[in-house]
Amino acid sequence: MRAVDIIAKKRDNILLSDEELKGFLESYLSGETTDYQMSAFLMAVYLNGLSEHELKTLTQTMRDSGELIKLNGVERFLIDKHSTGGVGDKTSIALAPLLSVFGIGTAKMSGKGLGHTGGTLDKFEAIPGFKFPATEEDMVKTIEHTGIGIMGQTENVVPLDKKLYALRDVTATVSSYPLIASSIMSKKLAVRSDGIILDVKVGDGAFMKNLADAQKLANIMRGIGEMFGRKVHIVLSGMEQPLGDGIGNGLEVYEAIESLKGNGPKDFEKLITTITGIALVQKGDVSSIEEGVKLAEEKLHTGEAVKALRDFVEDCGGDPSYIENPEKFLTATYTLDVKAEQDGYIASLMAEKVGNSAMLLGAGRETKEDEIDHAVGIVLKKKVGDKVSKGDTLAIMHYNQKNQKLEDAIALLSGAYGYSDSLVKTPEVILDIQ
Amino acid sequence: MRAVDIIAKKRDNILLSDEELKGFLESYLSGETTDYQMSAFLMAVYLNGLSEHELKTLTQTMRDSGELIKLNGVERFLIDKHSTGGVGDKTSIALAPLLSVFGIGTAKMSGKGLGHTGGTLDKFEAIPGFKFPATEEDMVKTIEHTGIGIMGQTENVVPLDKKLYALRDVTATVSSYPLIASSIMSKKLAVRSDGIILDVKVGDGAFMKNLADAQKLANIMRGIGEMFGRKVHIVLSGMEQPLGDGIGNGLEVYEAIESLKGNGPKDFEKLITTITGIALVQKGDVSSIEEGVKLAEEKLHTGEAVKALRDFVEDCGGDPSYIENPEKFLTATYTLDVKAEQDGYIASLMAEKVGNSAMLLGAGRETKEDEIDHAVGIVLKKKVGDKVSKGDTLAIMHYNQKNQKLEDAIALLSGAYGYSDSLVKTPEVILDIQ
Repeated sequence: MRAVDIIAKKRDNILLSDEELKGFLESYLSGETTDYQMSAFLMAVYLNGLSEHELKTLTQTMRDSGELIKLNGVERFLIDKHSTGGVGDKTSIALAPLLSVFGIGTAKMSGKGLGHTGGTLDKFEAIPGFKFPATEEDMVKTIEHTGIGIMGQTENVVPLDKKLYALRDVTATVSSYPLIASSIMSKKLAVRSDGIILDVKVGDGAFMKNLADAQKLANIMRGIGEMFGRKVHIVLSGMEQPLGDGIGNGLEVYEAIESLKGNGPKDFEKLITTITGIALVQKGDVSSIEEGVKLAEEKLHTGEAVKALRDFVEDCGGDPSYIENPEKFLTATYTLDVKAEQDGYIASLMAEKVGNSAMLLGAGRETKEDEIDHAVGIVLKKKVGDKVSKGDTLAIMHYNQKNQKLEDAIALLSGAYGYSDSLVKTPEVILDIQ
Repeated sequence: MRAVDIIAKKRDNILLSDEELKGFLESYLSGETTDYQMSAFLMAVYLNGLSEHELKTLTQTMRDSGELIKLNGVERFLIDKHSTGGVGDKTSIALAPLLSVFGIGTAKMSGKGLGHTGGTLDKFEAIPGFKFPATEEDMVKTIEHTGIGIMGQTENVVPLDKKLYALRDVTATVSSYPLIASSIMSKKLAVRSDGIILDVKVGDGAFMKNLADAQKLANIMRGIGEMFGRKVHIVLSGMEQPLGDGIGNGLEVYEAIESLKGNGPKDFEKLITTITGIALVQKGDVSSIEEGVKLAEEKLHTGEAVKALRDFVEDCGGDPSYIENPEKFLTATYTLDVKAEQDGYIASLMAEKVGNSAMLLGAGRETKEDEIDHAVGIVLKKKVGDKVSKGDTLAIMHYNQKNQKLEDAIALLSGAYGYSDSLVKTPEVILDIQ
């Protein structure tokens, strides 16, 4: 069937057969179907949606378009945790060591970040000498040794997803639920795992602005996972305000390590213990998430998990003394207190503004070519629900350069805080588990 | 504003300002906005539509993207008649001479046809030596001398429409009412005229399969014309069966000439006298279409209009003896009668099948590179409503080659006829005038 006929069918809401959709997608990857045909098709998908079966075919074709990461030799129960991203999200760095204590391995690919702060790779690169395992074999070794398996993204996995994503990015077809869901899930399904846990962020600082939308996306992703016989849980977590207190690459690794010793912010601890509880259910060690969370909380207080992180960093060529003495991450030349401008309760702390403020300091990239400054960032001292008096320190900025961008960053951060005269409830970090 | 933001607005059904839409379209013509961005936009337009104002901006930007045909020096009242195309449609060839008798000039651009039979240009090329006026100046001369102004399409008029159409053709975004309407109207508005008459074909052999869809398209086109201050009438004419009796290039010119002497098929005469009636209303010579039709009918019987056609052909380098002795067009080597297979009334005569049958004989092009055989085609002897006995001649095929395609053409033509035992009404050719 000609490409134009496939586009016309989707345009007219006529179901595509497996063969039609698969053939069309493969002809795009091979270059026979053009970008301009695919972008018309993607817009039709955006506006008309995909059936469950089409969604499965799309996901499967993307997964099978490249290499599969089979992780031969790994004996551990394997969890793939994925977050849709948000401000202050250092979950992977603390979660993988915590799971490791329970004998659970993590297997995920992670890339450089674009936006407020870096990706997981950028955060680890705050440690001198650190490099992600370069090959699958190297990752298998780190998983078996430390429980932690995170590697850089390779061009050879889901190349069709990469090609489609690049096109969606410039044709206003990114924010489509089935396209987001199949893109994420094709990557998850390309890597061997026993359980998948998706952390979907909801709120001002996230792609999903409200719970209903996030639940819709979560449902689609879980449906795909189940079609492929995977155990999938979805955590919907709040991103009205940043997660935890530290925003910025080194500052976030610092906070992740402190959290593994039980010294972390409560919201962040709640998230990683919840996900660990889910993982223990998936593994079959416990029969309820609550039970698993309890076990996870105990391990935070023993601090055992830090060792797994230390060993992983060492295996990856990083300086392990940074994990042993995390204050080594606090290397910015200057700090500056941002003060409360009035009395009251913090009613809002807009995650996106905080993230953009950190980006102005140099913590994130505006374009792919930008260099990241691993030392800079923000440490929040007051968050939503806290009572403040005028002049109290709201947050501390860590920075290396005194310039106009710093002034803008300060203004942005001040403006991110909203006040109320009456009591404000501390927001829940876990909004829903599906 | 970035292209991707314009696409997102249309995707989300947010009205685009003049500036936004115009800028986006112009950046596409200049090559800054890519094909893959435009095709995503076109699909969003296909599915979400355009506001009246956006439609005007699109049409205007297409019109203004190239040269305008101003026809300086033409004194006559000028009509631009456009047909959406169908099987056996030789309207322009007869209409322009008939209008000329009333002092009305015609000004239109016409191209080579793709499909069942050739375009107006191909039909005229059945006359040895004939070439369309090459320049605007040449067209002005033929209009003033003969009343008839038809020229080939030039690359310099509405280049944006051409670029968009080529993209729509391969991205399943052709059959969108606003896109069709603006494409047609931008071409009409690029050529000076006092009145525009659009002949929208409806039925099996036309792009518009039913009256309601055709009325919708007609309404949009008239709306655009009125926004630009032009007089616009729309004739909705039947194309359930072919128009007239002759299908094939030379055969159609022959029939057009015979019609100008009052010897043509009734349905075809009805169409050209109706359009002439409308033109006389637009010119202000009569106050009702009926009155105008009556005048047109009289002129058919005098045969005066043939002279204008003769002079036009001569001005264009063609051999005028073909107009004087139209049997010269009947040059196919063979003819063959297709016979009725049963008794009854002809209940249907599927225009598209008849057209495809003529194409198999060599009357039309399947691809742009195909050569046309100007002599071949079909002359219908029985049409819907006619009573036939088994063995009566339904149609005569004119052909030059005895081969498998001929066999297929005969089978297609036989299969185009449907029979009924009970009386069948002769279909109306004029379905509606708007």
